[in-house]
Amino acid sequence: MERADWIGAPEGLTRIEGMGVTAPDGFRAAGVAAGLKADGMPDVGLLVSDRPCASALVDTSSALPSAAVLYTRTLHTGSLRGVVVNSGCANAATGEPGITDARAMGAAAAAAAGVPLDSLAVCSTGVIGERLPMAILTPGLDAAAAALSTRGGAAFGEAIRTTDAFAKGGTFRLALTSGPVTIGAAAKGAGMIRPDMATMLAYVATDACVLPGDLLVAARAAAAGGFNRISVDGQMSPSDTLLVLANGEGPPLEGADLRLFADALRAICRYLAILMVKDGEGAEHAVRVVVAGARDDDEAERVGRAVGESALVRTAMYGQDANWGRVHQAVGQALAGTGGPVDVSLRFDGTVPDGPDIAEVLARPEYEMHVALGRGDGWAELFASDLGHGYVAVNAGYRT
Amino acid sequence: MERADWIGAPEGLTRIEGMGVTAPDGFRAAGVAAGLKADGMPDVGLLVSDRPCASALVDTSSALPSAAVLYTRTLHTGSLRGVVVNSGCANAATGEPGITDARAMGAAAAAAAGVPLDSLAVCSTGVIGERLPMAILTPGLDAAAAALSTRGGAAFGEAIRTTDAFAKGGTFRLALTSGPVTIGAAAKGAGMIRPDMATMLAYVATDACVLPGDLLVAARAAAAGGFNRISVDGQMSPSDTLLVLANGEGPPLEGADLRLFADALRAICRYLAILMVKDGEGAEHAVRVVVAGARDDDEAERVGRAVGESALVRTAMYGQDANWGRVHQAVGQALAGTGGPVDVSLRFDGTVPDGPDIAEVLARPEYEMHVALGRGDGWAELFASDLGHGYVAVNAGYRT
Repeated sequence: MERADWIGAPEGLTRIEGMGVTAPDGFRAAGVAAGLKADGMPDVGLLVSDRPCASALVDTSSALPSAAVLYTRTLHTGSLRGVVVNSGCANAATGEPGITDARAMGAAAAAAAGVPLDSLAVCSTGVIGERLPMAILTPGLDAAAAALSTRGGAAFGEAIRTTDAFAKGGTFRLALTSGPVTIGAAAKGAGMIRPDMATMLAYVATDACVLPGDLLVAARAAAAGGFNRISVDGQMSPSDTLLVLANGEGPPLEGADLRLFADALRAICRYLAILMVKDGEGAEHAVRVVVAGARDDDEAERVGRAVGESALVRTAMYGQDANWGRVHQAVGQALAGTGGPVDVSLRFDGTVPDGPDIAEVLARPEYEMHVALGRGDGWAELFASDLGHGYVAVNAGYRT
Repeated sequence: MERADWIGAPEGLTRIEGMGVTAPDGFRAAGVAAGLKADGMPDVGLLVSDRPCASALVDTSSALPSAAVLYTRTLHTGSLRGVVVNSGCANAATGEPGITDARAMGAAAAAAAGVPLDSLAVCSTGVIGERLPMAILTPGLDAAAAALSTRGGAAFGEAIRTTDAFAKGGTFRLALTSGPVTIGAAAKGAGMIRPDMATMLAYVATDACVLPGDLLVAARAAAAGGFNRISVDGQMSPSDTLLVLANGEGPPLEGADLRLFADALRAICRYLAILMVKDGEGAEHAVRVVVAGARDDDEAERVGRAVGESALVRTAMYGQDANWGRVHQAVGQALAGTGGPVDVSLRFDGTVPDGPDIAEVLARPEYEMHVALGRGDGWAELFASDLGHGYVAVNAGYRT
């Protein structure tokens, strides 16, 4: 990614070479092919900490959450030991039998990994409406447990992919006054754009010591500033999950170090979120839509969503057309009924729509669309992608 | 259209052969090519009543209405004589100079047609953000006035088209206890789906005598039950307009006859609206999404919009895939935060998603998707179209 300024990394956070979620001390992981995916790719991921973790779970706000989400919400988040994930089947819209399956999946994985019952979060991603094939899955859980390794972070990252074009994650070092900590991340998702597979999953592991309450506050802020700032087609999944695991021992972070850790978590989540936008099917551009001059932040947010999720604006991005009339139309719709004047002013990476450099700007893989409204101090941002033929091809052809 | 049951026509309303908006007594119209469209197609339409009309205007709720809309709102709707329309330029996002242009357009047309100043509604549709080319337009207004004819309804219907695949309108006879009245209609629009041209315009002329207040109530109800029940990509235009002109003399309609007229107007608007959905670029299916069993009608409406405007659901319609998981996902998103159980049950023209006839149903050009939620008595409907390659091709390639 070229736009480091989009991430907002705090001082002291650096990206390093490493195995992602197994880079922090005390984490082992694995990814194996159990046979849930027809193409034989890895489909079971297991991440286990040698010691209990403080954990923070931020999951879907759908009114119809998946069975895995419903089960995981019942766990005690102060003493998790890790997470087990399968791809290929979402275990969503499966009712009570699905919850029983999720619980059995967690129990089998815990037994195989030698950790307590109900100490593993459970996530599933794939087709909605089909039961988990437990007879295929269970041997896969055993195989994953047998393969657990401190070098297994990359395999874990592969196993959670569905139709992602590339694996997403990273390894980071954060300098704190109390000493350095390591943070590893693995994520999947193409910004809710994928058919059925439309799920965002992100796992962050760290050897920092953080109180569960502090971790939850930081995770919620990171989700709000990261994954909730992206939209491809405005579709929410029943399985969306961010899970942060912190297995550090010793005095928990506080004060400036805790704030720095929270800032780093937010930057890492923004990094992962923007990767998801860039992976959108058929997407050729990641566009940061910034709305300024709204009456308040809520109004700016509404305008940002209207612009960034507009099919007309997004096809114009795809066509590299500085079609400001479509932005104008979306703004007018978003502000319907609010009264008062609106003075729309538009810049693409600082260039006006009829500027001489506009064609070059709109060809960039990443650019910023700045929409000023001249009504107040309200501000919002949204990361969006363009809408091209690839989206239709994948989403119409899938399953049939 | 095969689904007459979608229209809800009252008894006594019949479609007849006729010239559309010039079928009612006392209306003349014309459509000419002034040169606003590069392809030389008709682009100026004029509809004039020989006597003052009661009129009802229902227009866009955009916060950035077009100059034509802003001008037309200032007119006295109790004594309009007709409407002048141009296609090829929307005169939107043109500021004060645009309003001056709209006023000048109305004045020139009125002078040419020999009707009072400020007695013609003004509508413009086409590219947003460009000024009206008055030097080209004004001679066109003269030509249109010279061509006014009681047989000009069809030419008027052609002139208001932008990229519509077919002209939309009809001629209707309504039997009332006080005697028959004639209603003619002309409309353009492809359900907000078109690039820049995204505008719905509808004109209904009748020789019924209706008090302006009654006409406005009927027009608002007709818009709510017709044009506000369709969605292609959820995009609202700055120019959307429904104008009803009633030039009848004698005692105004009241009681049962007034209710029957209002029902007929609603049915005609539903007919025109569904034609717009069927004309959506690349659209191969018009789908009536019916949501039942919501807690209340507002909740049903929210679910209907979420389903009917979902890019995932609409690409599944295009692919003729009974992908109920995507409907489930959209329902979950729409009901986020509402609490309580949801029991989604889905039928396509009465067939369950895994029924033996489902492939045949999903191939139909028109079918009903019935979404039951099992939470209460709330109900809503929305007419939607599928999302195919044609949409991307037109909207990405346009203008560039």
